[in-house]
Formats: sequence, structure tokens, C-alpha cells
Amino acid sequence: MSKTNPGRFFEDYRIGEIIPHAVPRTVSGGERALYHALYPARHALHSSDEFARACGLDGSPMDDLIAFHLVFGKTVPDISLNAVANLGYAEGRWHRPVWAGDTLRAESEVIGLKENSSGTSGVVWVRTRGLNQNDELVLDYVRWVMVRKGRPDAPAPATVVPDLAKAVAPADLVVPEGLDFTGYDSGLAGERYRMGDYAIGEIIDHVDGVTIEEAEHMLATRLWQNTAKVHFDATFRPDGKRLIYGGHIISIARALTFNGLANAQIMAALNGGAHANPCFAGDTVRAFTEVLDLAETPAPGVAAIRLRTVAHKSGERDHKIKDQDGKYLPDILLDLDYWAFLPQ
Amino acid sequence: MSKTNPGRFFEDYRIGEIIPHAVPRTVSGGERALYHALYPARHALHSSDEFARACGLDGSPMDDLIAFHLVFGKTVPDISLNAVANLGYAEGRWHRPVWAGDTLRAESEVIGLKENSSGTSGVVWVRTRGLNQNDELVLDYVRWVMVRKGRPDAPAPATVVPDLAKAVAPADLVVPEGLDFTGYDSGLAGERYRMGDYAIGEIIDHVDGVTIEEAEHMLATRLWQNTAKVHFDATFRPDGKRLIYGGHIISIARALTFNGLANAQIMAALNGGAHANPCFAGDTVRAFTEVLDLAETPAPGVAAIRLRTVAHKSGERDHKIKDQDGKYLPDILLDLDYWAFLPQ
Amino acid sequence: MSKTNPGRFFEDYRIGEIIPHAVPRTVSGGERALYHALYPARHALHSSDEFARACGLDGSPMDDLIAFHLVFGKTVPDISLNAVANLGYAEGRWHRPVWAGDTLRAESEVIGLKENSSGTSGVVWVRTRGLNQNDELVLDYVRWVMVRKGRPDAPAPATVVPDLAKAVAPADLVVPEGLDFTGYDSGLAGERYRMGDYAIGEIIDHVDGVTIEEAEHMLATRLWQNTAKVHFDATFRPDGKRLIYGGHIISIARALTFNGLANAQIMAALNGGAHANPCFAGDTVRAFTEVLDLAETPAPGVAAIRLRTVAHKSGERDHKIKDQDGKYLPDILLDLDYWAFLPQ
Repeated sequence: MSKTNPGRFFEDYRIGEIIPHAVPRTVSGGERALYHALYPARHALHSSDEFARACGLDGSPMDDLIAFHLVFGKTVPDISLNAVANLGYAEGRWHRPVWAGDTLRAESEVIGLKENSSGTSGVVWVRTRGLNQNDELVLDYVRWVMVRKGRPDAPAPATVVPDLAKAVAPADLVVPEGLDFTGYDSGLAGERYRMGDYAIGEIIDHVDGVTIEEAEHMLATRLWQNTAKVHFDATFRPDGKRLIYGGHIISIARALTFNGLANAQIMAALNGGAHANPCFAGDTVRAFTEVLDLAETPAPGVAAIRLRTVAHKSGERDHKIKDQDGKYLPDILLDLDYWAFLPQ
Repeated sequence: MSKTNPGRFFEDYRIGEIIPHAVPRTVSGGERALYHALYPARHALHSSDEFARACGLDGSPMDDLIAFHLVFGKTVPDISLNAVANLGYAEGRWHRPVWAGDTLRAESEVIGLKENSSGTSGVVWVRTRGLNQNDELVLDYVRWVMVRKGRPDAPAPATVVPDLAKAVAPADLVVPEGLDFTGYDSGLAGERYRMGDYAIGEIIDHVDGVTIEEAEHMLATRLWQNTAKVHFDATFRPDGKRLIYGGHIISIARALTFNGLANAQIMAALNGGAHANPCFAGDTVRAFTEVLDLAETPAPGVAAIRLRTVAHKSGERDHKIKDQDGKYLPDILLDLDYWAFLPQ
Repeated sequence: MSKTNPGRFFEDYRIGEIIPHAVPRTVSGGERALYHALYPARHALHSSDEFARACGLDGSPMDDLIAFHLVFGKTVPDISLNAVANLGYAEGRWHRPVWAGDTLRAESEVIGLKENSSGTSGVVWVRTRGLNQNDELVLDYVRWVMVRKGRPDAPAPATVVPDLAKAVAPADLVVPEGLDFTGYDSGLAGERYRMGDYAIGEIIDHVDGVTIEEAEHMLATRLWQNTAKVHFDATFRPDGKRLIYGGHIISIARALTFNGLANAQIMAALNGGAHANPCFAGDTVRAFTEVLDLAETPAPGVAAIRLRTVAHKSGERDHKIKDQDGKYLPDILLDLDYWAFLPQ
């Protein structure tokens, strides 16, 4: 048993420490094809080299969530092995696209620690960075998790709670180099709605539903080299269910937004997110989105839209998300706040 | 709800109108690998660059049905969203192979309209074209579907029923540029049967059976960006079943034909096809093929064989397809009439 | 029925005969991506081009088992169609890596024949070779299977039982050209254990469990173009179960060894292997490994480790493999003896 990685416990984290994560990963057209098989993804910029070139890029980059999932997956052995709960995300930004042939690695900096009053666990905040083979920043985001203590008598660290932005400011969004939406072809993209067609507060229903199978969420989660037991081992939970990786729901929800948000081509920032309730095979996932904000960018023809996409597993939906006590309703799966780029 | 694409209704089609379909798609080795994972495909020309080069091509093209499925998938939001039934195919031809790196887009021309006597729906005929990044024709075919009317009082259009060929004439088949079967290696291909070994009227049993899982048909159908609800949402039909995309059965059947038709390497034309009965997860698909015709082509060593491949879900089979009233027997899934190229 | 390949029966094999197998196969990044989706594979050398380059290779080769499965799959129509049992492996060696773009083909030489006393079947030994597009040897291994006789009265051949090595000698292991572990980065690889950290006789538990779904093993087995009915057709066995391809368990077990053997990067030799009991969907596969031997190699920084990886489907495990009569316990799935390369 001595060679088994027991994972880190709450007392093993130090403020300022940078944890390099193992197993870099090279991506290819294979990951892109699998993404299309696993999710109903149809945003044209991630589907067609020609469309992406017409938007000023060298070709179609990997879906932004491929970068997110691969980076997240690498953090699991160092951050989530003894985690009790995944509490939140903040200040996430995509800094440059990932192309076929790129190799991603990841590292996390411990930026916050707070022992719980029970003394048996604590909250760890990390800022995770995904880097490519040229050590260029691809993605970074803050995530906080509740982690068990290994030794109950380990002393509590000094409490440090990072001051996190409610949302990434529009001026801090990073437009991919060369992106130009002035010649944008909305016919090829699938919908005619541009920045001016959306209103803050507008709610868009995304129509489709996806019933999840065990094989699909396991294929996806393995593809990201996220090997947390609970997703793969039906004997792990007393109820015999395999918990679906929360990121799987993020990708399903984002793909469903195509209906109504086909032109929100690129994810720019992750302002926040909550995996409100667990999801299991057999659940049918649906989504709706509220427009939270709109902004211009310095790039030609490129605007930004801030969206709150909610995934749920109820058949009919009145857009209620929380109960009167502010608690998520039991059929809400995901509450995701993010920026995307769309044509002006 | 205003941003949801409601799809076109019968009264929204006009004769002569050309409908461009959205979301072009670039393919890579990823799509090829997935095709091999999803279907028991073993035709050597689509499996091996070396084999394809020895046949005069630059490398192994994508399976012909990858082009078909991708083009078909693009038409769904514009043609089938309010379709009641997929009635038939005709005059389909593959005009050039698709290679890794190619980008496909699609458009459909409305060539026929006929309102049903009920006044609540009508038949729409379209000629769909798949084009690559150089605007070269890759594939075209006629398809007709029964589409609901949106407004019952919409006036009936003038009836136009296109005159469609029973089968593509051998002289109209397009042999891929450079294809040369004079040095064909039937040892590597897996069987020794060439044009002269087949007789018109001969029936070939393809031996194997494939039991279908939900995850598999959904992965495949999503890969083609065909997002029709009925394939993915287990809550959509009252019986809780997900209807399997008819093209999934076409690909399974075509792959099964390897046993007995390993040398029918390339699909050349789609003369007709009927999805005789629905297929659901748990069904075991088997196939047999009748040789309908044989023809020579101008290309060196290349012959053409016209085949009728029937897929069914019965264990034992006497090659009966229809009952005495000409209606498909309930275990028949697919009745496909096509040309393929094989060595002389 | 005349065009159906009935497969070879015991009496159809001749000592010294070389059987070329059909359907060569070109691999790409698609196969690599699928391998990561199908198996929890995390060995860095097969995940990252950058990591592989830092180890002296031109880029990340395909997982060694991709080569094994593809070669094995090609042999099925000629070797296993009428096989009653897959009895063993020996003298397997990987001779060179497989890269994206390579095309593999396979051939088998009959090296042993022994009719069973019943007179209804016999054992066939073959040495199978996998070759790339330059006719270079990629992989070879001996495999023996029990094959039915087609005609009960076919005369028994002269008995030839090959003399097979218990294990490949360390001096016969082929280190991939250029491999150099002197600058090995164990941080990126995920564990710090090198040759000196392992002791002969040590047993390593690999912690994770993988519950198998029908869709997953079928996708994998099809990907290798292994189309043996029993894996795909739920009506083939009286119990309605689909038998899982033994190689699927090999890949799951090898991937699980990452926990504790993350640095055993490359499979070098297959000394022996037994598929001890059948595996079916719903089984949860776990594994442990015993260190059998350690050896140096002439390559800079490269050592070899001989491992016995046992896969089983029991929740708790005491490392017992066989009962007092030397028979495998019913929950043991795989008993695999192999060499791998790791840093000194």
C-alpha cells in the first residue's frame, strides 16, 4: 500500500505554495472529434477550420471546455482526492486558444485556507493555471474545495480568505489574437442574433434535453484523465450510483445553449459556478440562460456577453432556481456564470 | 422563447429555393477512429493509407458514410425538425472522397412539394448537396419527408412531384480520381471475390449481429451533429424510448456487409432507401444483401455492383422482406439500394 | 452462405505455414484520444509529446497496447473464429513504437500443433508478427488456442509443441531507439519511484476500480477491428451476456497500475498471460501487481521491471490468486506477466 498516493489533507496545504500537477497531455483532432461525439456541440468556430479562419484565427481551436477539463483533471490527484465538496469557481479566464498538437500541463497556487469550526476539515482556495508547451498561460481560475483533515490534531493554519471578484471585468477579458468578427457569417453559424439582439435580463430556453448514460460520462471523464473513483466505481457509494463529474454537466449545458446562443462562440471567462445537485445516469439534462451583461471589446466586431446558464433535470421549468431560503431547488444541477465572445 | 428555432413547416418551403445549412465541419483522424469504434467497419480502403495508395488514391479517405451523415446532420434543423416521416432517398451520388482536414458544408434545394389530402401536412422533396472547402461537390442526394403544416389554413402550393430515377445509371457513377484496382490485393482486403464472382440475384448473408446500446447510437448521432430530440431525450416519447437515427442502421448494415462483400470498397451511389421500422437500444441488427446489378466503369480494374442490403432485427431470417400486401415485415429495419465499386 | 468465411478448423493449420491477416490499419491521434477515453491511462510518455521528447523520442508513441490490440484483432478471422479457448501467450516483445500515421498489418506463423485426446479439437500455437508500413517488426508474440476440428475424421497432424521461454530474458528486451531516462522528470510523470524503489516480491495495490459498461467494451473491441460475435451479439450466448474481449481487461489493468507504477512507462515484453475467468458488463475491475524481477538495460537511465499484474472483480482482496488445486479463484480475471521500462 505504501506506493499509493493518499492525496493531500487540509493540513498539507501552505499559503503561497505552488503545486505542479502531473501528466502533461497532447491533444489532437481525436479530442475534438470525441468532444463532438460526447456533447451536442455545434458552435461553428469550434467545428470548422474554414469558419475560424474567416474569423481571423489560424484554424478551429479546441473547444474552450476541452482546455478547462484537461486542466481540471490534472488537479484531481493533488486537490480533490480528499475533498468533501467542490464549493466554487471564480476569476476564470481563457488566455489563448488550444490547438491540435498543443501539450497542456497545470499547476495550482494555494491562495486561501480556512479551517472549519468542527476542526475536522477546512476550505482550500487554489488558483489553477493551465500552460501550453511554450509555458504560455492558456487558462486560469480560482477554485475552492472543502478538504478533510488527515490528523484531527493538526493545528489550524492562519485563516486567509482571498478577495475574489464577483465577475471578471470586461476590460480584463482576453480576446484571442487575431479574432475579427467584422465579416462574421451568421448563416453558417446557425442564428442571426448578435450583441444588439440580446437584452440584459432576457431568458433563453434551450429546448433540447439529453438523457445521460453511464458509458458516456465515464468516457468523457476519462478523456480528461480525471480518475476520481466516484465517477467510475459502482461499488464506491452505498447506493451503487456513479456520481457524474460536474464538468460533464457544464459541457452538456454549454452545448445546449447553441439554440438561442449559437453566436456566443468563445468562452472568455468563468465568473462563478455551483454544482447545485448531483447528477446520475438516467437523468435528462436541460438548460436555460439569463443574459446578465453585455460589453464591447477592443477587437474588431467582437462583443462580450455575460451569461448565467442553469442546467436542470426537470421536464418543465419556470426558471425558478432557489427556494425561499436561497437554497437550490433539488432539480437544479448547475448554475454557471461566464462571459462569451459574440459578434457585435 | 423567441430565439428558439421553430423549424420550417410545410408552408415555408418554395420550389427552387436553396436553403444553406449551418455549422460547417472539419474532419480529422478523430472522426475516422470514432467511425471504427462505432461500427464494425473493416473495408481496407477506408482503414489503411497504404492500401488506398496502392489503389491510386493519396491516402485513405473518410468512410463514404461519414460524408453522408455529416451532410444529413446539417439538414436536420432546416428539413426534419417538423417532419413526421422520412419517406425516401434517390439519386444519391458520391462525387469525391473526403480527406482528413476537409471541411464540409451543406445546402438543400427544394425540388418538390405536395400537400396531403388531409391538409395538415405535405411532402417536401429536397436535393441536398455536400460541398468541401473548395466548393467542390462531395455528395448529393434527393430525400423526401412528410412535414407538418404550421398554420392549417396556409394555402396548398402547386403540386410538383420530381421525376426521380429508379437507380443511378452506371454511366453516371463518379469514380474517385486516380482509382485503379489493377493491382488490387485481395489478400489484404480480406476476401477473394471480385466482380466475376458475384451473380445478379445472389443473396449474401453477413453472419454477424450487433446489439445496440443507447450510448453508442447517441455518440454516433451527436458526432454527425444531428441533434433531433427524439434520439437523445428519453422523456420525449411517451414510451420512454429513444428512437435510433436511421443512418446509424445504415452504417451498421454497411459494415456488416464486409463478410461477403469485403471488396465492395467504396459506396458510389444511393439509389433508394427505406427505414422500414424503428430501431431501439437492445435490438440486435443483422443484414443480408441481394446483388441487383453489375457494371463496368472506365477506370482501370474498377467495376460497380448494385446491392440491396436489408437490415433486420430477427434472429433467423428467410430473406422475406415484405408481407403479401407489400408492407415491410415488422422486424425489417432498413432496405437500402446502392452502388459500390469493387475490383473487376 | 457460400461467401461467408467459415474460419479455419484445427485440421486446416500446417506447421511452418505463414498466414497473412487482412485489413491493414492506419492509426492517428484519433486512436490515441479514444484510448484515453476508454481506459484510465495516464502514463506520461503516452500522454505528452513534450514528455516523450524529453525522453529522447520524436514524440509520444501510441500506447503499446494499441499495437497489441490492433495486431490481435487482425488475427481473429484466421485464428480464433473456431477457437474454444485462448490458452496462453509467450515470448511477446515490442520491437519499435507505433506513431500517428503508421499503418499496421499482421501475419502469423504456425509453430505448434497438438490434437487433443478427444479427437474433436486441438491446440494451435502461432507466432504473430505486427509490421508497419516499412515492413519493420513492431510487435511479435506467441499465442496458443484450442481450435475445433471441422471434420471429426481429419487425421491428427504430427504433434509439435514449441519450446517457449518462461520469460523474455532482459538482454532480449528492445529499448526504443533514442530512449534516454537520464533527465527523467518524475514530477511530471506523477510518482517518484524509480528502479531502486521497487523490491522483488513487493505487491502494489492499485486502489481504483472500474465498473464496465456494454457500450465501452464494444467501442474498444470494435476499434481494434476485432469482430468476434461473442463480444457484440447479445443473442449469441444462451445467457444473453456479451463476453468481454480479454484484451479489454489487459488495458484496464495496465492503466490502473499507474497508481504505484506511474514510471513503468513502456511495455517491453509479454512473458505470459491467462484470462482466468470471463468478464461481463457490470463487473468492477480492480488490480494489484507483484514485482517479479528488475534488470538494467544498455540504454541511458533505462531499467526494466518484470511485473505480474492480476485483475480481479472482487471488492476486497488478499492477493490470493489460485485455490489449493492451483486453479484460479472465480473472481480472478487476468494474470499477466510482462516487462516494462522505467527510469533507473
